[in-house]
Amino acid sequence: MKLLEERIARDGRVIGSEILKVDSFLNHQIDVELLDEIGKELYRLFGNEGITKVITIEASGIAIGCAAARYFKVPCVFAKKARSLNIGKDTYTARVHSFTYDNDYDITMSQSYLSSDDRVLIVDDFLANGAALRGLISICEQAGASIGGIGICIEKGFQPGGEEIRAMGYPLQSLAVIESMSEHHGITFGTR
Amino acid sequence: MKLLEERIARDGRVIGSEILKVDSFLNHQIDVELLDEIGKELYRLFGNEGITKVITIEASGIAIGCAAARYFKVPCVFAKKARSLNIGKDTYTARVHSFTYDNDYDITMSQSYLSSDDRVLIVDDFLANGAALRGLISICEQAGASIGGIGICIEKGFQPGGEEIRAMGYPLQSLAVIESMSEHHGITFGTR
Repeated sequence: MKLLEERIARDGRVIGSEILKVDSFLNHQIDVELLDEIGKELYRLFGNEGITKVITIEASGIAIGCAAARYFKVPCVFAKKARSLNIGKDTYTARVHSFTYDNDYDITMSQSYLSSDDRVLIVDDFLANGAALRGLISICEQAGASIGGIGICIEKGFQPGGEEIRAMGYPLQSLAVIESMSEHHGITFGTR
Repeated sequence: MKLLEERIARDGRVIGSEILKVDSFLNHQIDVELLDEIGKELYRLFGNEGITKVITIEASGIAIGCAAARYFKVPCVFAKKARSLNIGKDTYTARVHSFTYDNDYDITMSQSYLSSDDRVLIVDDFLANGAALRGLISICEQAGASIGGIGICIEKGFQPGGEEIRAMGYPLQSLAVIESMSEHHGITFGTR
């Protein structure tokens, strides 16, 4: 998605060789016009898949999930990061490893909002190691929901998550794929 | 806002005398059509205030903030709940007391995205004791930003936050105000 690549190139900040900050337009301050274009592009990619629900994960997935859900005219459900042991029996749960913080956390979703009748579009802002995405896939499996698409805004193509999840057969599309990046040489985009 | 009151009456779940769950349409599963109407109503209320930024707090404020920001054609910035001590020097910070969990947490916002040039609309899903809202007001004060409006989806009118914040002179409007509620007698709405 040209518009997103251009925005990342202009306003993204590379720190070291692995961290890309898109705080100024995607996940702290949000450019709602760009967000709307992201929703439209996800609909262009997956609009024929019979999607009944968009799912994502708090916090930075929520804006993207809602923007997509508007185009699909379906609800958006976001998985919560469990704060404590207040996980009800009527909850899907998955353990996710955070590479950023080097710890594990649980994500949860009420069973009321996802079932075997659903065909799901999973969306998120970033894909690197794929840990959060695997958690969302696990929740879909627990619900018996089928996955009609996975739409990621920014895939770090130099990390293994995308390749592994495509190898598992999931219909993953990323709107921008970063082949490499560095503070001095900037960002190189690719395709998958 | 009639549409929101009707939805709360139909799909909200009252637990005890103080907890209202709106998980099915506002803060776990999100009805994006209703969300859009909420954004439109906030624009109707505050559209003449010269708003330059919508601010809110993660996670459940994000969808509402972005829906409003679309109508105002301005960015949405969401305060983060601090996970650790990784708060940079270039960050506004406020301490918030959680009555739900009976603990304190910090909310943060990068100084890059709010300044004395901004006129802010603050939005959130719930207002009860007003702790989170006071945190957002504090962040606006730290930035020197003026507050053009505060828009809340659901105010628990039987708790003190709304009255206190109006008494401080802030232009607070709530789309639905609950006067009283109970599991057996349902929900009574009012106005402020």
